[in-house]
Amino acid sequence: MQQAEVQWSPEEKKIAQAALEGARDREIEAVIKSIRENAGLISQIEDVWQLHDYLSAKRHEIDGKYDDRESFLMFTLSRLIKDGLIDLVDLSGLEPEKQSKVKILTRM
Amino acid sequence: MQQAEVQWSPEEKKIAQAALEGARDREIEAVIKSIRENAGLISQIEDVWQLHDYLSAKRHEIDGKYDDRESFLMFTLSRLIKDGLIDLVDLSGLEPEKQSKVKILTRM
Repeated sequence: MQQAEVQWSPEEKKIAQAALEGARDREIEAVIKSIRENAGLISQIEDVWQLHDYLSAKRHEIDGKYDDRESFLMFTLSRLIKDGLIDLVDLSGLEPEKQSKVKILTRM
Repeated sequence: MQQAEVQWSPEEKKIAQAALEGARDREIEAVIKSIRENAGLISQIEDVWQLHDYLSAKRHEIDGKYDDRESFLMFTLSRLIKDGLIDLVDLSGLEPEKQSKVKILTRM
């Protein structure tokens, strides 16, 4: 699959960008919810470091996850579907071929 | 000041250890309090990463701070006094010379 050769129209880029932003918002919301829910349960230092480990992992993950370069978009979108942050239906409006490729990638 | 030559009696080690543990407990309590107080105020990703940065710094600090090797105890204790986590009075029971040395180190 030669990702570098895939062409994205301005409309498609807009759709992909909106999907990415929606996913990012949802992921951030989930992180904030998790912090709030767990803050009250923290009672010892191990709990604090567990929260720290969780945030370290999340930061690393979020930093690398929303790559919107055209040559990576297909992978980025499939990853977000796999993570349950977007749905294939959010990509309707993309060329059918792109939708198929994203769908295939979600199975890898 | 030749720290390596300082001798600590079992009683003195017990006093120093108790001071360290008390300080550690107080510091951890403050970290937990801070997480709880701030969790409700977190509303965007920048706040989340700010909490992460705070925890990273605290973890690094706490990891290195409570060095109870005899050759470091004087420094450890003076640092805890400087940080307001223990008081000189917590060290009564140590040889007067040790108390003086810790006091001097707090001014450095």
